[in-house]
Amino acid sequence: MEALIGVKNLSYALDTFYFLVMGAFVMWMAAGFAMLEAGLVRSKNTAEILTKNVALYAIACIMYMIVGYNIMYGDGVTSVIPGISLFLGPDNTADAVLKQGMDGWYDGSYYSTMADFFFQVVFVATAMSIVSGAVAERMKLWSFLAFAVVMTGFIYPVQGFWKWGGGFLDAMGFADFAGSGVVHLTGATAALAGVLLLGPRMGKYGKDGSIHPIPGANLPLATLGTFILWLGWFGFNGGSELIVSNVDEANAVARVFVNTNTAAAGGAVAALITARLLFGKADLTMLLNGALAGLVAITAEPLAPTPGLATVVGIIGGVLVVFSIITLDKMRIDDPVGAISVHGVVGIWGLLAVPISNEEATLLDQVIGAGVIFAWVFVASFIVWMVIKATMGMRVSQEEEFEGVDIGECGLEAYPEFVGSQGSGK
Amino acid sequence: MEALIGVKNLSYALDTFYFLVMGAFVMWMAAGFAMLEAGLVRSKNTAEILTKNVALYAIACIMYMIVGYNIMYGDGVTSVIPGISLFLGPDNTADAVLKQGMDGWYDGSYYSTMADFFFQVVFVATAMSIVSGAVAERMKLWSFLAFAVVMTGFIYPVQGFWKWGGGFLDAMGFADFAGSGVVHLTGATAALAGVLLLGPRMGKYGKDGSIHPIPGANLPLATLGTFILWLGWFGFNGGSELIVSNVDEANAVARVFVNTNTAAAGGAVAALITARLLFGKADLTMLLNGALAGLVAITAEPLAPTPGLATVVGIIGGVLVVFSIITLDKMRIDDPVGAISVHGVVGIWGLLAVPISNEEATLLDQVIGAGVIFAWVFVASFIVWMVIKATMGMRVSQEEEFEGVDIGECGLEAYPEFVGSQGSGK
Amino acid sequence: MEALIGVKNLSYALDTFYFLVMGAFVMWMAAGFAMLEAGLVRSKNTAEILTKNVALYAIACIMYMIVGYNIMYGDGVTSVIPGISLFLGPDNTADAVLKQGMDGWYDGSYYSTMADFFFQVVFVATAMSIVSGAVAERMKLWSFLAFAVVMTGFIYPVQGFWKWGGGFLDAMGFADFAGSGVVHLTGATAALAGVLLLGPRMGKYGKDGSIHPIPGANLPLATLGTFILWLGWFGFNGGSELIVSNVDEANAVARVFVNTNTAAAGGAVAALITARLLFGKADLTMLLNGALAGLVAITAEPLAPTPGLATVVGIIGGVLVVFSIITLDKMRIDDPVGAISVHGVVGIWGLLAVPISNEEATLLDQVIGAGVIFAWVFVASFIVWMVIKATMGMRVSQEEEFEGVDIGECGLEAYPEFVGSQGSGK
Repeated sequence: MEALIGVKNLSYALDTFYFLVMGAFVMWMAAGFAMLEAGLVRSKNTAEILTKNVALYAIACIMYMIVGYNIMYGDGVTSVIPGISLFLGPDNTADAVLKQGMDGWYDGSYYSTMADFFFQVVFVATAMSIVSGAVAERMKLWSFLAFAVVMTGFIYPVQGFWKWGGGFLDAMGFADFAGSGVVHLTGATAALAGVLLLGPRMGKYGKDGSIHPIPGANLPLATLGTFILWLGWFGFNGGSELIVSNVDEANAVARVFVNTNTAAAGGAVAALITARLLFGKADLTMLLNGALAGLVAITAEPLAPTPGLATVVGIIGGVLVVFSIITLDKMRIDDPVGAISVHGVVGIWGLLAVPISNEEATLLDQVIGAGVIFAWVFVASFIVWMVIKATMGMRVSQEEEFEGVDIGECGLEAYPEFVGSQGSGK
Repeated sequence: MEALIGVKNLSYALDTFYFLVMGAFVMWMAAGFAMLEAGLVRSKNTAEILTKNVALYAIACIMYMIVGYNIMYGDGVTSVIPGISLFLGPDNTADAVLKQGMDGWYDGSYYSTMADFFFQVVFVATAMSIVSGAVAERMKLWSFLAFAVVMTGFIYPVQGFWKWGGGFLDAMGFADFAGSGVVHLTGATAALAGVLLLGPRMGKYGKDGSIHPIPGANLPLATLGTFILWLGWFGFNGGSELIVSNVDEANAVARVFVNTNTAAAGGAVAALITARLLFGKADLTMLLNGALAGLVAITAEPLAPTPGLATVVGIIGGVLVVFSIITLDKMRIDDPVGAISVHGVVGIWGLLAVPISNEEATLLDQVIGAGVIFAWVFVASFIVWMVIKATMGMRVSQEEEFEGVDIGECGLEAYPEFVGSQGSGK
Repeated sequence: MEALIGVKNLSYALDTFYFLVMGAFVMWMAAGFAMLEAGLVRSKNTAEILTKNVALYAIACIMYMIVGYNIMYGDGVTSVIPGISLFLGPDNTADAVLKQGMDGWYDGSYYSTMADFFFQVVFVATAMSIVSGAVAERMKLWSFLAFAVVMTGFIYPVQGFWKWGGGFLDAMGFADFAGSGVVHLTGATAALAGVLLLGPRMGKYGKDGSIHPIPGANLPLATLGTFILWLGWFGFNGGSELIVSNVDEANAVARVFVNTNTAAAGGAVAALITARLLFGKADLTMLLNGALAGLVAITAEPLAPTPGLATVVGIIGGVLVVFSIITLDKMRIDDPVGAISVHGVVGIWGLLAVPISNEEATLLDQVIGAGVIFAWVFVASFIVWMVIKATMGMRVSQEEEFEGVDIGECGLEAYPEFVGSQGSGK
């Protein structure tokens, strides 16, 4: 009896600890997005994008604690409209856990709800981080942060409730293991709505139809960001198994790690070769986006595929992202870091690829799920962006954009000593 | 019986593994301080601050192994004067652990003492890292390292013994969960003593009373450092619970994670808004210091508060740090990275905030504890700095300071190709 | 009985989770090598070295999955020639694990084989990362990647089979706990073969016998890389204990963490002092290489030594690396980042140091092991490099080398805005 109580305690403790470690890995992705985006913008806009990334993470943590988590995982009135309560409730008590544990292996409280909150809150921040890259170099800082408040407190949690909170998308059979749709497509869709209202950066598209590449100022930073995201994704996907404490679950988490890694590898190699064939060069930024595309693609179903199939899912994501970036550019949708392609276009591919390996999913359900998420997030975001545009304004002045938003918004420069007299970044 | 032995083994193993992972997170903070400080100094002093940060970590590890750990956790003669022995002892034996385990749940050896040493040693390094930032851009490298030897081998461990080693501060009722005082105030106090003897950087304060801002050369690096510290802090506070292997302890660790995160978020947002109100701009460096202030503030008691209260503790830390940085500048105490404000002033706030949520702590005990730590560390550090000043000298020559300590101390430059011909960093 | 099943499940789960976390730490080393190498080359060659590092990691993951893992851990025909099968097999079933678990504590399936693969695959990438630094700034990108395919799919796995796969080196008694030989010497040997065929960089060695230092463009990046590697090494060595789930194993893992850390500290301090005595300055790059040398030195045996002895092993590594770098330069073997010294020369020292603390190892066995690995990897690599040289070519054109390989190979620049008009990097 004492041994059995010990087993229950240890099981709860291991699952909680696993959740916390995985959550810390995902939190680290906030640094990854910050570095990736800071590396891909021009030096004159770097401090501002860093400010946005740190502040959005902080806002996400606070808003999701106050209201978002309870929208997403509270007791919904129906399966479409979630219930709303405020702040976090108490954690499971040892008595309740052990009493339940005596009657069967798992129930709703097999790990700390605080750990669950911690894991979920870093996901919200990830979704919001996707937005900051797409609107970089031209959006007002405080307008962006105002959007972050609504996005992390309301828009994200509502669709999150529909799938992970047990709402109608979940009931319908829509499958999204770790959030190709719930997180990545959501972030990309909110970004798209913002970009459409915001317009492209000055000088990006010529009146004669020409497209001018605007190179990022610091590619080691962008590479570091990609490695950080790659590492963090083990927490993102690996933690989404939710349990690790027995043989089958441990095997599942291990398989998710392997598949996540190999899909990223496949995406990286595929994008590198695709870029080589198209441009004649080994384009580093495409390589980085390819790795991220592989990660996004496998996120909807990192458990069911064999590692070989996971690699293929990543490869297709890596090819897709190159063509998507080119196509969006031709459509004059200006996304400085390629976030809409990586997280949106490839996120949809990830959702559609689920039925290949997961027999319980159907292509129709996946299309509906992707469509519902896109429709909700696009419409809701568009309205919020419109309200912000009408009140605070969305875009910095032409002069500020020319001089760089760092000086205008932050009152400082990211690299005050480095930029040469030629001022190539301006 | 076999199952019970298995449970004891697993419990010991899980707690040990948890300690090692949390310790690795804290070790990672050494990288965080290095990046933060390297980003906030001028390019001409960057290689030297990096050298100091790597070397101080190495010195801390060696000194604490040889003597510090045994001072702090050895068998003290009295509760004021710790006993001293050398090197680490043997680890717990499996026989002893299992024999004890059969008689009751926990005793003094519920995890590996080697893991305990690993966790503790990275704390010492953290305290020492705080010093390097405050004395940056003007202190001699080898003098700094000499101080590091005494600080990590003696000054830190003595006050650490008073609280965490079971000395008189602990007996008195002073509460400091993860070290707002033992680690952060200690580091900041040693830094303050050094800065007072060292004086401000050339050109920082004009004879007419003017204050000249000296911007950091690489803010993406400083932002990365802040994210690293934020991540590492989950180990810092989360590991300080010491045990994770049952329901209550797992819940406690999870709550510490959530509170640590939300306090940082609160500090970040508060500092951002405070800076906006004071300066009219979204000052990135204040945002970063605000996040760190939130982390320092919650460190003395990250378990007892609700997440809502933890956020408030962080918010107050974030406001406080902005005013503290401004005030120290007016007092002509030149701290290039704001370390004394972040770790010292906010560290005291963290200690004083404990009684708000922890009924076992009293404001008087907290004031006494903060006072004792400050007095000991300040006096001891001041004496050591004085001895160093009298023998090796503390400050580089005026010419070396003008040219940058990188060339003078390290014989190389951090960014040999980047600084433009205008040499704005000089 | 239920409790015992729970214990077996938890044991399997904890060991698997430990393996995955340690593996994630090692994966993070890929970022460390990328940052280290990007910081130590000139800015005009930075994007290319980043591209190589990301791509080689991806290639290693795919090749090792398809064929390498099965060469290394498959059922060998004899102990010299490994058997070859393709792709990964199924994981352990819960039934088999629990059935075996009832009869005795540990057998061959005490953790997920997928987790084992994940841990092993990141080791292969480490070995390959060593090569990229040594051949930096002059080797063709696609030729390098072609070598990576053969190295990670065949050359590395064969010698890995000889030791860790149970081949003849293992049977003979050769000891290499975590890979001073299997990983680090292997990488350095392949690098040496490449460097000898490739020749030094333009302008490195004058016709008059002079040696021109070529400083790295971004030392904060190199320092970050070193800290990343230091952190990742806890996974590298700590995970190589393979099990953590009982008192003795947990103690062993904890000791490995402590020894790994203190050896790095010893190496860092030793190299710093050695450089100071030789050059009169606190050379940051030598400090970094010293820390890495300490890590490489302890990798062959991080468990048996006391922490004091581990420090000494690291110290000798730190002294050795400084003299090795100087000596290789005098021999006109141009290794931009010191990889051959850090991983090769010090790797051999690590192997030879094993018998000092591990009674089961003999100096003769260690010499033979080091010799076999060196001979196999050197000859096999040399042949592959020769084939590549004869077909694709190894070296970029003189003009491309002068202009920087970033433009030639990647079609972009790492820091397009930063380099001053003096173009000091060219």
